Amino acid sequence: MNAESITTGDLAERLSCDIEGDQFLMLKGIATIEEAEPDQLTFLANPRYRKQLTSCRAGAIIISSDMEASPDIVKIISKEPYKDFRRALEIFYPVVDADIPAGINPGTQIHKTAIVGGNARIGAFVGISAGVTIGENCTIYNGAYIGQNVEIGSGCIIGFNAVIRSDIQLGNRVTIGDGTIVGFDGFGYTPDQGEYFKIPQVGTVVIEDDVEIGANCCIDRASIGVTRIGRGSKLDNLIQVAHGVKIGTNTVIAAQTGISGSTTIGSGVIMGGQVGVAGHIKVGDGMIVGAQSGVTKSVDIKGVISGYPARQHSVSLRRDASISQITKLMKRISELEAKVEGLLMELEE
Amino acid sequence: MNAESITTGDLAERLSCDIEGDQFLMLKGIATIEEAEPDQLTFLANPRYRKQLTSCRAGAIIISSDMEASPDIVKIISKEPYKDFRRALEIFYPVVDADIPAGINPGTQIHKTAIVGGNARIGAFVGISAGVTIGENCTIYNGAYIGQNVEIGSGCIIGFNAVIRSDIQLGNRVTIGDGTIVGFDGFGYTPDQGEYFKIPQVGTVVIEDDVEIGANCCIDRASIGVTRIGRGSKLDNLIQVAHGVKIGTNTVIAAQTGISGSTTIGSGVIMGGQVGVAGHIKVGDGMIVGAQSGVTKSVDIKGVISGYPARQHSVSLRRDASISQITKLMKRISELEAKVEGLLMELEE
Amino acid sequence: MNAESITTGDLAERLSCDIEGDQFLMLKGIATIEEAEPDQLTFLANPRYRKQLTSCRAGAIIISSDMEASPDIVKIISKEPYKDFRRALEIFYPVVDADIPAGINPGTQIHKTAIVGGNARIGAFVGISAGVTIGENCTIYNGAYIGQNVEIGSGCIIGFNAVIRSDIQLGNRVTIGDGTIVGFDGFGYTPDQGEYFKIPQVGTVVIEDDVEIGANCCIDRASIGVTRIGRGSKLDNLIQVAHGVKIGTNTVIAAQTGISGSTTIGSGVIMGGQVGVAGHIKVGDGMIVGAQSGVTKSVDIKGVISGYPARQHSVSLRRDASISQITKLMKRISELEAKVEGLLMELEE
Repeated sequence: MNAESITTGDLAERLSCDIEGDQFLMLKGIATIEEAEPDQLTFLANPRYRKQLTSCRAGAIIISSDMEASPDIVKIISKEPYKDFRRALEIFYPVVDADIPAGINPGTQIHKTAIVGGNARIGAFVGISAGVTIGENCTIYNGAYIGQNVEIGSGCIIGFNAVIRSDIQLGNRVTIGDGTIVGFDGFGYTPDQGEYFKIPQVGTVVIEDDVEIGANCCIDRASIGVTRIGRGSKLDNLIQVAHGVKIGTNTVIAAQTGISGSTTIGSGVIMGGQVGVAGHIKVGDGMIVGAQSGVTKSVDIKGVISGYPARQHSVSLRRDASISQITKLMKRISELEAKVEGLLMELEE
Repeated sequence: MNAESITTGDLAERLSCDIEGDQFLMLKGIATIEEAEPDQLTFLANPRYRKQLTSCRAGAIIISSDMEASPDIVKIISKEPYKDFRRALEIFYPVVDADIPAGINPGTQIHKTAIVGGNARIGAFVGISAGVTIGENCTIYNGAYIGQNVEIGSGCIIGFNAVIRSDIQLGNRVTIGDGTIVGFDGFGYTPDQGEYFKIPQVGTVVIEDDVEIGANCCIDRASIGVTRIGRGSKLDNLIQVAHGVKIGTNTVIAAQTGISGSTTIGSGVIMGGQVGVAGHIKVGDGMIVGAQSGVTKSVDIKGVISGYPARQHSVSLRRDASISQITKLMKRISELEAKVEGLLMELEE
Repeated sequence: MNAESITTGDLAERLSCDIEGDQFLMLKGIATIEEAEPDQLTFLANPRYRKQLTSCRAGAIIISSDMEASPDIVKIISKEPYKDFRRALEIFYPVVDADIPAGINPGTQIHKTAIVGGNARIGAFVGISAGVTIGENCTIYNGAYIGQNVEIGSGCIIGFNAVIRSDIQLGNRVTIGDGTIVGFDGFGYTPDQGEYFKIPQVGTVVIEDDVEIGANCCIDRASIGVTRIGRGSKLDNLIQVAHGVKIGTNTVIAAQTGISGSTTIGSGVIMGGQVGVAGHIKVGDGMIVGAQSGVTKSVDIKGVISGYPARQHSVSLRRDASISQITKLMKRISELEAKVEGLLMELEE
């Protein structure tokens, strides 16, 4: 991707950061500590990578004041290096390429009753159905499908081969990743004499403003009522959100996690990858759920839960550590048994 | 989705249920206990939601005779509320919209040797290859692909952007979810001096009558022979079924579960989400496998297994509980050691 | 799939194997031990299936010299039956059908600046963007999308509805499975006062020669720098490879595994299914990671790790076994306590 060029001094000024070293070095992009060249910027936010500084060839680095770096590297002193790294990216790459040209590709099918807002970018082989309304400044990539009566706000991005089934509502600035399916029927059956009968899934999905969903996810429509993802929440790839789930605002969920039907996830929750959450339960606001946890019942405590079944993280750690003690315990018990047997024999004499 | 209207009395009669309260209340749809309005029906099948009855505004409720509800709500007394809820849905929503119009979309490619049965509904950008036969009343959504010589029965639904690779057979009334890939090559390689060489995957997949598969699943073709999903089985989203797997009849598998190669899953099995099953093993008929279990060897017992490695559920629970005892055990051992040391010293005196 | 015919004698000669029995039996295909007919070949590589030999109806079998089989079956004696099975497959099925016809389907969009090498096979509804270069002998299936400036080597296969986002590089003989998304934005956000702000993902993905990736995977582009999958590595279905991950050469990863951001997986690694690997860590060359493991920190030992958190497999097994001992330990401690109490009382008298 082509980057803008900017001098170290100008960059520091735009980031409102102090600078140590040459203010006139021309930077031509950003790269990792390992890969950055002398005309590139890098950053150090995770102390784990500190030792890579010794071999770093970058021209400049965004770094906190308490970290050391080679005197050859121009230092842009930041209180929050990761946040300033993000802002620097926006300076170097002000326009991230939309991947498809502006306008509506002729090789696409838009129903005559659909309304598409201004400044649209719609790829080839897209289907837009009857009664759809799409706001301004939306991008819909090749192969995507928008079902009947779907409402999409402004500034939305619908990924390649993504599917939005009928009657779904998307807010503004929503991103749906490539291959993600929104509004497929929930997994609902009733058993009857050993066979299973489908429960019609007549509900819908509401995805609020500023939600971003990754690739190849499944967000099922509710059986009745709504599956809802709250404003500002971010979902990674390959995530399953079952029918009737409610996710609060500004919640972040990592890849391959699955939320079972009718469960409520609070706001400001952080979930690791490959987490499983049982159906019909609640995960409280602000909770942190460790990767690969299995949350089997409602939980609303401060802090982190982990493990299967998920417990307070400190408890999980203690349990894990205690298992390592069992072998030693067995030895101590055997020794005690021998001693007690000895005592018993001695007393019998 | 638009619902039919029906009076409480007519509904009770059609469900063969007793009724308590106004028989002439006109109902205009179904909603959850939380969301139902005074002109809507709701239901209570899971006692977990009982306490929501106090604030429920629904006009009528499907409920078992032993449950209490506000006298303001018309009660439709059911022995199996969840089953009658399903039947009520079919009454209120007799036609669930097919999402694409009837007929064959002109923006699609059907090979001249393919045979498509009557009353087909085929979307845009679909590919139907040479030698394909498709029964009557099938729906194939936009972007789907049907490979050479595939045989599809009647009443089948192939989801948006789903792929059925060549030589696969589908029975009648089969649903393949959006983005699901049926018949991709199994994952088979032989190592040779540190490199891996692909084993040709020349087998196929057979999906029997009334099987329903969710979205973004992968059902791999067998290396040789057949990958088979038995009649009436239901699979949720994001499921991996590897090459040569056999799944029996009326088995239900929740989202994100993976079945490794050449494994046989019995009939009437219920599997939770995110389960992993090792290759070349058997899971017996009628077993229940808890969510996130790891089934590492063949198992055929009555009842439920859970955990990693999967064990009888009661054993898993006991093991889990016993871990909580370790800290206490350590304390008891320390106390014992002190007492025994005391005894030993006393005797030495 | 149609198989070639070959006599047992010719087959043995082409595999450089000894033969026991009729050299002139005409074989018409390969099947499993259970399904093979008298005019078909089968093989026995996994001793687990040995007992099925008694009811095997195959005409011939590839088998090691130390295994017994019915005298009615022609034995092709192999030192490495699985490897010779693969070679036999290549003899019986010399051409595995490409599923779509040769040439470029007219219902596809190729940008005028894209360069497509000779002998291409490109399906319908494909998008090939500006600046793309594709080598010779490539197959691109229906519904796939190739983003701007993507470079694809020769002999590559891009699956149905697969997506290669802009600026990605693929080596030679690379396979990308159906529905797989390469180069979607990595999952990177910075929190600010309870909201999350996207970090532009301006890096890319490099997939080296002979890499094969299954269906419905997600290989994210790096934030900055490169997500890399090394030469000869093989990935199964539904796998998540996050931004900035580096995978070495000839590494094999089973289905539904997820690798978190910036993590490095060595060369010659074997990973089971549903493994989770944390971010910013390293898994050493040649390691074996058991299915469903959770790798939480860098690890570089000889042999196998398993469990959550992942430990040396022998340790995990010992811990697992020790948990089964807790109930017995509790009993032994209770007995000891009773005896010690008895001793104490006796001494007090």
